[in-house]
Amino acid sequence: VTRIACQQLAPVFVDLDANRRLTVGAIREAAEAGAEVIVLPELITSGYMFESTDEALEVAIGADDAILGDWSDEAARSDLVVVGGFCERGEEGRVYNSVAIIDASGVRAVYRKLHLWDREKLVFTPGSALPPVVDTRVGRISTVICYDLEFPELTRSVALAGAQALLVPTNWPLVPRPETERPPEVVIGMAAARVNRMAVACADRLGLERGQEWTGGTTIIGSDGWVAAESRDPGLVVADVDLELALDKRLTDQADAFGDRRPEYYGGLAALPGSTPA
Amino acid sequence: VTRIACQQLAPVFVDLDANRRLTVGAIREAAEAGAEVIVLPELITSGYMFESTDEALEVAIGADDAILGDWSDEAARSDLVVVGGFCERGEEGRVYNSVAIIDASGVRAVYRKLHLWDREKLVFTPGSALPPVVDTRVGRISTVICYDLEFPELTRSVALAGAQALLVPTNWPLVPRPETERPPEVVIGMAAARVNRMAVACADRLGLERGQEWTGGTTIIGSDGWVAAESRDPGLVVADVDLELALDKRLTDQADAFGDRRPEYYGGLAALPGSTPA
Repeated sequence: VTRIACQQLAPVFVDLDANRRLTVGAIREAAEAGAEVIVLPELITSGYMFESTDEALEVAIGADDAILGDWSDEAARSDLVVVGGFCERGEEGRVYNSVAIIDASGVRAVYRKLHLWDREKLVFTPGSALPPVVDTRVGRISTVICYDLEFPELTRSVALAGAQALLVPTNWPLVPRPETERPPEVVIGMAAARVNRMAVACADRLGLERGQEWTGGTTIIGSDGWVAAESRDPGLVVADVDLELALDKRLTDQADAFGDRRPEYYGGLAALPGSTPA
Repeated sequence: VTRIACQQLAPVFVDLDANRRLTVGAIREAAEAGAEVIVLPELITSGYMFESTDEALEVAIGADDAILGDWSDEAARSDLVVVGGFCERGEEGRVYNSVAIIDASGVRAVYRKLHLWDREKLVFTPGSALPPVVDTRVGRISTVICYDLEFPELTRSVALAGAQALLVPTNWPLVPRPETERPPEVVIGMAAARVNRMAVACADRLGLERGQEWTGGTTIIGSDGWVAAESRDPGLVVADVDLELALDKRLTDQADAFGDRRPEYYGGLAALPGSTPA
C-alpha cells in the first residue's frame, strides 16, 4: 500500500513568503507521518481570489522558482512525491492555474487547468494539454485541478492513460448541500474512483479570503471508490491506499471496467461542441 | 415539477403471466399515487438469472407483445410515461436485454443494453445503438440499463443529446459496501446527475433468484445531484423532481456545465480501444 497525505491549508493571500513557509512545513509534517505522496491545495503559493490577471501576475512564478525548489528539496530529503498548485507565470503576460508534480529528482511535470471555474476565466489562460501521467516510485500518478474533476471525460481519459492515482489540488467554494451529505465534489470524486478503479485524493483549502468561504472537503478515496479518510478540519489527512488494485480493471471473470467500454459509441463526446443545447 | 415513481419489485422467474399481473398492478398503483412517469426494473417480464440464450428465448417477447400492450393501455388510461425492462426476442434467435419507453400513444422506443454485465454476455446480444431521447408530455427522457450507468461516456452522451431525465431499470446484484454508505451504483448515479444536471431515477429489484441476492437500491435523484427519494423495501418510491432545471446548464454567470467542456481534448475516449492496458 501507499501512504497518501493531503494538507488542508489556509494560504495567506498574495504573500509568497508566508505560503512558502506554510507549504514547506506542511510537506515536512506529512513526511514525518510516513507519507509517500503529499497533495497541497490549488494555488497554495498565492491564494485564489484575484480580481484581474494583473493582480495575479504580481505573485505568478515560474516552475523554476525557489518555492518549487523548496518543495523539490523536501521531496528529495524524504523520497516523497509532492503535488501542489501554484499561480504560474507564462509567456507574454499570461497566468495559469497550474499544478507541479515533483519527486526526488525535481519538477517532473506541470499541468495547466483545462476547465476554468467561473471568474477564473477573467484571470487565467486555460491549459491546452491533457494532464501528464508520471511514473513515480509509488506508481503512475496524474492530476486534475478542482472544477476539472466535474468533467468525467477528463478523469476517464487520465485513467485510460494509465493513472493509478489522481491527485487533485482544489479550492472548493462552499456551496449548499443537505446536512447529511458529503460535498457534491466528493460524490463526483467517489464515482470517478469507482468507475475507473483509480485512487482519488483531493486536497482542499480553508481560510476566509475576500469574503469567500471554502468547503474544507479534503478526502482520500481508494481505487474501490470508498472514502479512506476525510476531514473538515485544518491540517493533515492521511490514508493508506492500495495502488496495485488500480492496475487491474477486472470486476469479475466476465466483466472489466475498461474492456467492457464501447468506444465506437462515444465519438459524439469529442464531436459535440462545448455549448448548451438551445 | 414532475412526479416520478419507481417500483422495486420481485419478479417471478420465467413466469410471464405472473409478471404481467405484477407490472400492471404496479403501474396502476403508481398512477393512483399521481405519478406521471413510472420506472420498472430491468428484465421485469422474465427475471434475470438465465443460464443460456436458449433458456432466455423461451420467455423472450417482441415489442408488440401483449405485456407491453398492457403497459401501453395503462399509460393511455392515465396519460403516463412507462419505462420498463423486458427480455426481447430479436432476429435470428438473438435475445436482448431491453427497455421500452411507452406513453399514451404506445411504444415510443426500444433500447437494447449496450454494456452487458458479466454472464449476461453468455445470454444476450449487446445493443448497437445509443439510447433514444424521447419527447414526452413531461419533457425529454432517456434510458440506460443497470451496468450502462457505470460508463460516464454514455450518461454524458445522453445528457448532451438533451435528456432531462435518465430512467434506469436495474437489477443490481448485492455487493459489499461500508455499513454507512449507499450502494456504489447510487453514488455513480448521483455524480451522473450532478455533472450533467439531469434527473436520474433507478428502479432496482428484490427477491432471491437462483441464489442471487439483490441490492434493492431504488433511488430517485434530482437534477441537482441530491437524492429525492430512496428505499430498500419492496414497492413504490415516489419523488417530485424539477425537470425544467435540467434545461439550463448554467452554474453561475460565468460557468456552464456543458459550455465549459473542452471537447477538443476528449477525442481519445472514442479512439482508445475498450481494453485494459497491459
